[in-house]
Amino acid sequence: MKIDVNANIMDVNNAYAAQNRDLLEEKGILVINIMGSPGAGKTTLLEKLLSNWQKQMKVAVIEGDLATAKDAERILACGAAVVQINTDGGCHLDAKMISQVLPGFDLEETKLLIIENVGNLVCPAGFDLGEDLRLVVMSVTEGADKPSKYPSAFLAADWLALNKLDLLEYTDFDMEAALADVYAIKPSIQVFPTSCRKDKIQGLDKLAEAVIQLVEEKQKQANK
Amino acid sequence: MKIDVNANIMDVNNAYAAQNRDLLEEKGILVINIMGSPGAGKTTLLEKLLSNWQKQMKVAVIEGDLATAKDAERILACGAAVVQINTDGGCHLDAKMISQVLPGFDLEETKLLIIENVGNLVCPAGFDLGEDLRLVVMSVTEGADKPSKYPSAFLAADWLALNKLDLLEYTDFDMEAALADVYAIKPSIQVFPTSCRKDKIQGLDKLAEAVIQLVEEKQKQANK
Repeated sequence: MKIDVNANIMDVNNAYAAQNRDLLEEKGILVINIMGSPGAGKTTLLEKLLSNWQKQMKVAVIEGDLATAKDAERILACGAAVVQINTDGGCHLDAKMISQVLPGFDLEETKLLIIENVGNLVCPAGFDLGEDLRLVVMSVTEGADKPSKYPSAFLAADWLALNKLDLLEYTDFDMEAALADVYAIKPSIQVFPTSCRKDKIQGLDKLAEAVIQLVEEKQKQANK
Repeated sequence: MKIDVNANIMDVNNAYAAQNRDLLEEKGILVINIMGSPGAGKTTLLEKLLSNWQKQMKVAVIEGDLATAKDAERILACGAAVVQINTDGGCHLDAKMISQVLPGFDLEETKLLIIENVGNLVCPAGFDLGEDLRLVVMSVTEGADKPSKYPSAFLAADWLALNKLDLLEYTDFDMEAALADVYAIKPSIQVFPTSCRKDKIQGLDKLAEAVIQLVEEKQKQANK
């Protein structure tokens, strides 16, 4: 008897993802799945974006971590609705986890749902959560070879935030080589150079605006 | 019928790990499994350590990556024997992969085997490869909250290289908080503050020496 365990796991995940997608589509909520290595700056980037978004719309956030509610506390302080999922050692969020926490949000009022995945440049890329868009955050301190060495994350991504640009001058990060690799893996990817450091903020308004534009399109589709 | 897939996978891994450990024990080879996030600086740290070790002993290196042989090429340039394992999307090395590449090395002459795991602060910690010692590399640019948010890696570690100290002054990394969390998770962990950046080298001799001491102990045990 041959048991194809992996296919089974993915089938179950995809079924939950489709269910999440249907529900969130119906409510006209744009969903972004944020992925990246530990310390790429995902939560800090999200804090900065929230301070822009919160003025104009209701945002919900799902935080994924192995342990602690540290990220959820930071997001709560930004005024967004937030649920923390602790995977207890698990290396990624899956669509079932998302489906289980969705009822905790006011889906009628929410216009944007951000899912911050577990910090991991490998496993999250394999799991559809029901999102509309995948944003990979990569910091320049990680080194220019990361796209070619971890291609699955960049292949799965729609957008890339190339973060911690404020530290670029102190590293030997080869921007040209990194971008060449990124575009070779995913020609359609949209790259947002960003820095979230106080007094060195860069590229955040452009990223925030690009999301707002997608939120508005999603709203239009839902109302038609 | 209940199939406990995870237990089965771990049993198989542990059997290969025990086999690796027996073989390497017999040959008197010290084995270090290096883990850490993508971009923590594992390969650069290893390059620097090799330039110290290569003068006095034969070192073998196994490089684990999803794709490319970039790291193996860098290690080869340091004069060490190296085999690159490409996991083709896999998020960690397992003991079977190690057992398959061991015959490629001159185990009679080798005194130290370094396994650089896939860049991932989550999954590698769960897989015994047959190593004597686990070294986690974490860079200060990743942020001080990483130990508490990714406890499994630090719990699994014997040593921690707290790396990229040269960038400390440009970050808001809280050293005291990070170390308090690390020691709370693993009181016995030994911490090596390091910087590998040209002109800002720090802590490498101490780490290199600590390894050499263990290699010598291992040799004594094997010869008795």
